[in-house]
Amino acid sequence: MSLLIKNGTVVTHELSYQADVLCDQGKIIEMGTDLDVPVDAEVVDATGKLVMPGGIDPHTHMQLPFMGTVAQDDYESGSAAALAGGTTSIIDFVIPSPQQSLLEAYHQWRDWGSRSMANYSLHVAITWWDDSVCEEMGTLVHDYGVNSFKHFMAYKNAIMATDDILVASFSRCLELGAIPTVHAENGELVYHLQQQLLAKGITGPEAHPLSRPSSVEGEAASRAISIAGTLGAPIYLVHVSAEESLDAIRYAQDHGQHVYGEVLAGHLVVDDRVYQSPDWDYAAAHVMSPPFRPKHHQRALWQGLQSGHLHTTATDHCAFCASQKAMGAEDFTKIPNGTAGVEERMAVLWDQGVNTGRLTPQEFVAVTSTNTAKIFNVFPRKGAVAVGSDADLVIWDPEASRVISAATHYSKIEHNIFEGMKVTGIPDTTILNGRIAWQRGTLYARAGDGDYFERPPYAGYYAAIEKRNALAEAQPVAR
Amino acid sequence: MSLLIKNGTVVTHELSYQADVLCDQGKIIEMGTDLDVPVDAEVVDATGKLVMPGGIDPHTHMQLPFMGTVAQDDYESGSAAALAGGTTSIIDFVIPSPQQSLLEAYHQWRDWGSRSMANYSLHVAITWWDDSVCEEMGTLVHDYGVNSFKHFMAYKNAIMATDDILVASFSRCLELGAIPTVHAENGELVYHLQQQLLAKGITGPEAHPLSRPSSVEGEAASRAISIAGTLGAPIYLVHVSAEESLDAIRYAQDHGQHVYGEVLAGHLVVDDRVYQSPDWDYAAAHVMSPPFRPKHHQRALWQGLQSGHLHTTATDHCAFCASQKAMGAEDFTKIPNGTAGVEERMAVLWDQGVNTGRLTPQEFVAVTSTNTAKIFNVFPRKGAVAVGSDADLVIWDPEASRVISAATHYSKIEHNIFEGMKVTGIPDTTILNGRIAWQRGTLYARAGDGDYFERPPYAGYYAAIEKRNALAEAQPVAR
Amino acid sequence: MSLLIKNGTVVTHELSYQADVLCDQGKIIEMGTDLDVPVDAEVVDATGKLVMPGGIDPHTHMQLPFMGTVAQDDYESGSAAALAGGTTSIIDFVIPSPQQSLLEAYHQWRDWGSRSMANYSLHVAITWWDDSVCEEMGTLVHDYGVNSFKHFMAYKNAIMATDDILVASFSRCLELGAIPTVHAENGELVYHLQQQLLAKGITGPEAHPLSRPSSVEGEAASRAISIAGTLGAPIYLVHVSAEESLDAIRYAQDHGQHVYGEVLAGHLVVDDRVYQSPDWDYAAAHVMSPPFRPKHHQRALWQGLQSGHLHTTATDHCAFCASQKAMGAEDFTKIPNGTAGVEERMAVLWDQGVNTGRLTPQEFVAVTSTNTAKIFNVFPRKGAVAVGSDADLVIWDPEASRVISAATHYSKIEHNIFEGMKVTGIPDTTILNGRIAWQRGTLYARAGDGDYFERPPYAGYYAAIEKRNALAEAQPVAR
Amino acid sequence: MSLLIKNGTVVTHELSYQADVLCDQGKIIEMGTDLDVPVDAEVVDATGKLVMPGGIDPHTHMQLPFMGTVAQDDYESGSAAALAGGTTSIIDFVIPSPQQSLLEAYHQWRDWGSRSMANYSLHVAITWWDDSVCEEMGTLVHDYGVNSFKHFMAYKNAIMATDDILVASFSRCLELGAIPTVHAENGELVYHLQQQLLAKGITGPEAHPLSRPSSVEGEAASRAISIAGTLGAPIYLVHVSAEESLDAIRYAQDHGQHVYGEVLAGHLVVDDRVYQSPDWDYAAAHVMSPPFRPKHHQRALWQGLQSGHLHTTATDHCAFCASQKAMGAEDFTKIPNGTAGVEERMAVLWDQGVNTGRLTPQEFVAVTSTNTAKIFNVFPRKGAVAVGSDADLVIWDPEASRVISAATHYSKIEHNIFEGMKVTGIPDTTILNGRIAWQRGTLYARAGDGDYFERPPYAGYYAAIEKRNALAEAQPVAR
Repeated sequence: MSLLIKNGTVVTHELSYQADVLCDQGKIIEMGTDLDVPVDAEVVDATGKLVMPGGIDPHTHMQLPFMGTVAQDDYESGSAAALAGGTTSIIDFVIPSPQQSLLEAYHQWRDWGSRSMANYSLHVAITWWDDSVCEEMGTLVHDYGVNSFKHFMAYKNAIMATDDILVASFSRCLELGAIPTVHAENGELVYHLQQQLLAKGITGPEAHPLSRPSSVEGEAASRAISIAGTLGAPIYLVHVSAEESLDAIRYAQDHGQHVYGEVLAGHLVVDDRVYQSPDWDYAAAHVMSPPFRPKHHQRALWQGLQSGHLHTTATDHCAFCASQKAMGAEDFTKIPNGTAGVEERMAVLWDQGVNTGRLTPQEFVAVTSTNTAKIFNVFPRKGAVAVGSDADLVIWDPEASRVISAATHYSKIEHNIFEGMKVTGIPDTTILNGRIAWQRGTLYARAGDGDYFERPPYAGYYAAIEKRNALAEAQPVAR
Repeated sequence: MSLLIKNGTVVTHELSYQADVLCDQGKIIEMGTDLDVPVDAEVVDATGKLVMPGGIDPHTHMQLPFMGTVAQDDYESGSAAALAGGTTSIIDFVIPSPQQSLLEAYHQWRDWGSRSMANYSLHVAITWWDDSVCEEMGTLVHDYGVNSFKHFMAYKNAIMATDDILVASFSRCLELGAIPTVHAENGELVYHLQQQLLAKGITGPEAHPLSRPSSVEGEAASRAISIAGTLGAPIYLVHVSAEESLDAIRYAQDHGQHVYGEVLAGHLVVDDRVYQSPDWDYAAAHVMSPPFRPKHHQRALWQGLQSGHLHTTATDHCAFCASQKAMGAEDFTKIPNGTAGVEERMAVLWDQGVNTGRLTPQEFVAVTSTNTAKIFNVFPRKGAVAVGSDADLVIWDPEASRVISAATHYSKIEHNIFEGMKVTGIPDTTILNGRIAWQRGTLYARAGDGDYFERPPYAGYYAAIEKRNALAEAQPVAR
Repeated sequence: MSLLIKNGTVVTHELSYQADVLCDQGKIIEMGTDLDVPVDAEVVDATGKLVMPGGIDPHTHMQLPFMGTVAQDDYESGSAAALAGGTTSIIDFVIPSPQQSLLEAYHQWRDWGSRSMANYSLHVAITWWDDSVCEEMGTLVHDYGVNSFKHFMAYKNAIMATDDILVASFSRCLELGAIPTVHAENGELVYHLQQQLLAKGITGPEAHPLSRPSSVEGEAASRAISIAGTLGAPIYLVHVSAEESLDAIRYAQDHGQHVYGEVLAGHLVVDDRVYQSPDWDYAAAHVMSPPFRPKHHQRALWQGLQSGHLHTTATDHCAFCASQKAMGAEDFTKIPNGTAGVEERMAVLWDQGVNTGRLTPQEFVAVTSTNTAKIFNVFPRKGAVAVGSDADLVIWDPEASRVISAATHYSKIEHNIFEGMKVTGIPDTTILNGRIAWQRGTLYARAGDGDYFERPPYAGYYAAIEKRNALAEAQPVAR
Repeated sequence: MSLLIKNGTVVTHELSYQADVLCDQGKIIEMGTDLDVPVDAEVVDATGKLVMPGGIDPHTHMQLPFMGTVAQDDYESGSAAALAGGTTSIIDFVIPSPQQSLLEAYHQWRDWGSRSMANYSLHVAITWWDDSVCEEMGTLVHDYGVNSFKHFMAYKNAIMATDDILVASFSRCLELGAIPTVHAENGELVYHLQQQLLAKGITGPEAHPLSRPSSVEGEAASRAISIAGTLGAPIYLVHVSAEESLDAIRYAQDHGQHVYGEVLAGHLVVDDRVYQSPDWDYAAAHVMSPPFRPKHHQRALWQGLQSGHLHTTATDHCAFCASQKAMGAEDFTKIPNGTAGVEERMAVLWDQGVNTGRLTPQEFVAVTSTNTAKIFNVFPRKGAVAVGSDADLVIWDPEASRVISAATHYSKIEHNIFEGMKVTGIPDTTILNGRIAWQRGTLYARAGDGDYFERPPYAGYYAAIEKRNALAEAQPVAR
């Protein structure tokens, strides 16, 4: 059965125009004004609404085993939340334990992902290094559609990647046409500050941001970027939350380096006063890394989106409930790090971005969907409203409002970092693979409806990088 | 008769892919693999070649009356050169004399333009100010498809716009949904330095760059940007040639301001050693404003294109022959300012940009065509290879080479600033309004084949600006 | 009679150490530990206190005729306030009316200054231009000890200096070995915004900051700096209040240009919320230009002092009482611009600078006294605690506190912008020309005790500039 | 016997003025015009010459055991070269082997230093970490006058300090009132690039700069600065040679951090074309780390000195002769890293700095002597021409010239990186501890004439830092 969206305004990262959109077999097969209704077609009336590419959240952690427990939202509840928020694809992370085979871990995640209601893809983390890791990276790229590898620069004594691993892995990425990504925080400094705070008897969640000041993020961002730049590799920084790391990104971009930055919806609107709350549960619920920041960082992050120094928005959705957070009751370093957000991201971005004039609707589409599709090389299959593209769409109602609340969200946890925020501009209907997956409060998708999508290595792009690297060797541009 | 381009690789600002392109009635009407050949269709085989949007040069001055003479290349010879270089559209400048009616001048230029072989549009310069100017700006926007107004910050005692004019005109642009553009050089400083040099007896072309150092451009760029930013208007800077003005652009962009920058092909590859030549004619042939710069500025300009701080490439094609240049034999300030380039721009950009790895083919399309179409609001009519777009295309041969020379160029003047440069990557065929206009050395277009195209005010964009301005007033983002 | 300061800690811009200080004939004649007490000497015990160079306020306007009225504090009350605050020297401004002889105005100010209780010197403003102005600048430098000329870039239709005047006057300064200074605000923009606000019916003091946003200051700062840089002249910016102008200063300094910046005590601690007050008198009392700024600018200004991008602190002391402010009751543009502060500057700087660790005591001395003496070429005569220097000193009590209030200040006006602020670290004794001028609340100085001091052109410094300019011409460093 | 310098012009970091200088017992005991000649005094006539503080070179390695050999210049020849160049003090480096006691190494160096002809002091390197290192740092500060500890971020598998060591040691420095210093190059990247180059068969000295590009230095500089900034410690970067590291320094300083930078005379004037020489010995003679850089870095470094972002000049004098360099004949990574320069530094700085107008004579004194004395807390004992200061002076002849050559230098090696450079402005007489040590080509000093000088912890300075750190914790400035 085909699906015809009538009378809407198509909004892409470049244009807004009136057009009907006909979907069939999971694809967009026709676009135009006043399309005829095929005999078997379901029709959705989008009068007064916007037809946009479904959101892509490039940073989620569904059912992640982490810090001795497992994130509450699994692929089922997490992807339901995504669809309810207009997000049709997530890119989750395979995080192998040190010494674990990357492929083994990958297959574990694929198994979990088989219950996803939304489409999904997988980044793979490099948490240790030897020849087998190097080889399995190749297998993942060639055979399993993985084109991005993540590196945690924090979490000492656990999954932290030291400089020798970064150098080896970034080099391997360059060979493979994959893009390295980093969680940028200096793990040695974090560890030192944690010990210092604990030694002073400061053990509550208020210590969390003190143990991870923005300079710690700035340092790691600068380091990862310099290493990538020296090797001639592109790089993507997840959850940029600080002016310092944004400055590091900008500096490199200004010198012609290929650096991409992601910002979380939470960091754009929540500030570090949450950690001052006398309510331990409330404060602990906000413990994530990087932490929420002093307010002036938000100004910088919005400017980063406006100026194109930051490219994508995400959530780092990794949901821990109050009883899990309580594991750190005596010691803030044991509070599981993570919050939710996959359901709220797009509405928060529209309300605080488009309604305020900070972003145009085009920029909204770019930073919630298209840029991610481009960077991770699935554009125009994803991130586009175009004939031939996947029929992953959101019909957006720019006039409708709702109040965000844990009482009504799809996540399993009892807290929402945007609690009480009234947003104007929300999804009306979410279309996944050409079918209605969620509409005005009703979830139609079922576990397993989501498909895994492969992401090919970015050949053309790397050809340009190769030329530039060759040029740099022969005759330094800088001279 | 329709035209079918077979077997080429379509290259846009976002993608490269195999597709045939069918043109009819001046439009692209179908794209796809293995398209059938319509009965009456002319077929062009593009095997091994690239099918790209025809170039748009946003900065030319055909047959401009200037400094007591008239530029040699008129719309006929100038547009022939454009087509031979793969450029299908130019945006020329109506420059009213102080006290002259804008409309009167506009009609004069339209009359001249009727002989153009390439499509063209017109910016209008604001060289003086009173209520009639203000009113005629409205008429030009509403009735004549002009959405950009230019301001010369140099040329004291002639067409220089002082700050009061900038403030008034930028405000008017904002009201009308038009974009102000500036030639950024501090006219008072230039005048002072000119007088100082003449007083010292330095009268040759070597004095030209000394009278217009890069700081003079940086000052004016910063001023124009600040004025626009204060008023809440976007701004476009023509021929950015200096690190200082690029830094001013970047500073504003980094703070979220909408600033666009253009760079000339000449400034990217020619440096100021040309003014040291003992051959007066040679040195004088390079007299243009801003002048060619010390080499380190080129590094900055390329990085500006790579990092997206600069958006478009142009030529400022304004061709004066040797006998005209000789008007300044005794006094460098009387040498008519201007050089050619409309024929060479794209090949120079490909050779020095794409072949070196500085730019990807996508970035090449963006900076030679698409970005200009977007900024001046004719995208996707222009600047695109898409069904429904104007059939203005260039079939590019990335393997073919030629040596640039005044002996073979279409311009009427006897000098070429790229003389002797061997470029690899050149046009094979230029298609204008769906017909072959130039092919492998043969010009098929005739005077008058080019159409004038209107550019509508950018309504959606200004809606976002308006929201942001309102927000800034209500609750300063900066706080 | 000589004066011996015993047992204090001498604090200079470089060092802190124990030493007695013996003054005679207006000079410091001996320093050392355990100096013998001369027979006729008055002894001041400075145990537990700091002996520092007396403050120099490089920016005051005593009894200034401005905007149709005359500032309330004349040289007598104004200099009393200075002494009570530990400031022993002020540099006031001669502001000739357009068309008035500079010398005539200078003599008028000298006449007024003859009543000063503190030492004083005079900057002269360039408010118009012709050959006589150019010539009188020479006379002032050669015969009257003036080595600095000020230019107002704001105040259109009054004393605004347009670019042609800036170029001419800066060039003349360079010839004379004098330093140009600027009040940096774009007068055209201010005028436009004022008219726009009035046209909208926004007529109260809340419109004042809206008519002079920080971008207006940034523009003018950048312009003045570029003009000076192009000509090869140094430049000093008075009352830098905005991040944008600080950024412009930093940019130039980073490129090796000689740029100096002054910040007002008020701008460091008072923010623009004062203009939101429903109390018209309160809001109007804060009307000065540049206006108080959103809070984030303060962070930048303190960092400017810390990093050495800003060099001096001042007050722009120009005191208008409530009935004068009321002249603008119907129209904010008619509220006389100005506030007081000469008495509070040093205590505010100590309390908010040194007590918070933002500044070391050495940096405090530098920014309240020594740097001003150096820039205006009276170091080490002023700004030093050294044998041979003028005996202008302040004995500082770092432990004592007081609450600032209009009820107790020396200024004649009924408002104090620091009202209610408790400062720790205040003057104990102020010594002028080797005599106690003020001590613990008692004023001993009398009208006329202050001397006018000449400031010679900075020959050595300009020699270096000349070499650099010559080098720049011959062989651009930038290349 | 006392020494009287007559008729010279005293030049300090702040002033130039005529004065005679009387020295006795190693100290300056009187200054003034027309001083009487004491009966037993030796008189030096300095008519037409400048009397300046003797140079301090904060970075030398005399007789350093390194890379399997020992630097040729020992304390005797090295300090003779220093005196001949106007440098009266050096600060050399104790470099303990990993696992070696710091005190043991310190005493070894003191033993070697007993032969020094010039005054000297010692930095101590932290090349490993355990509790004993931590404790011995305290002993060195409290009992041996060491107030600076150095960290090599390069030289993997040898003396490289990893992040955990940096964090521990910087924290310890902060406790002790000592300043951490770093050699900033990312050791992992250098190692990777070295292996990559060797694997490609690129084994000659031309590979040296390719293995240590400027980005490698920028990364490490940024990292060290961020770590110090996070901990609240000041930091000093030795041999800043790259635009990237200068930018990192500037960024931190602009944000109020206390960061100091040193530049080598060699990096200011020698560029990386030396590595292209077909003469292996010549190229190898220039192998040092960081390597000589592409020319545009020099422009940045000079601007760094001019703008005050860089504070000191040094040489990293570490002299290896041709036969030692030959150890790396087959493998550039085995070429001992180091060049000479202690004799030439001041003349090169004067010639290229003062004679070109880049630096004033005051700035010359600051960057060759006074700033070093201040940063390492021996001012005004060293670095000053003042009563009570050590009588370490250089009498400078600004008009005299010489041609630098290995044929005439005091160093034992057969190569000079400034070979053939004609410098104008050279030492006439060097005075050490109040006695003539070198004069117009004749060396009067003898081994052992130099004294070791202790450097106390910088108490006052750290008090300010402590306040600021406390403030930052209580109430983030940044907010």
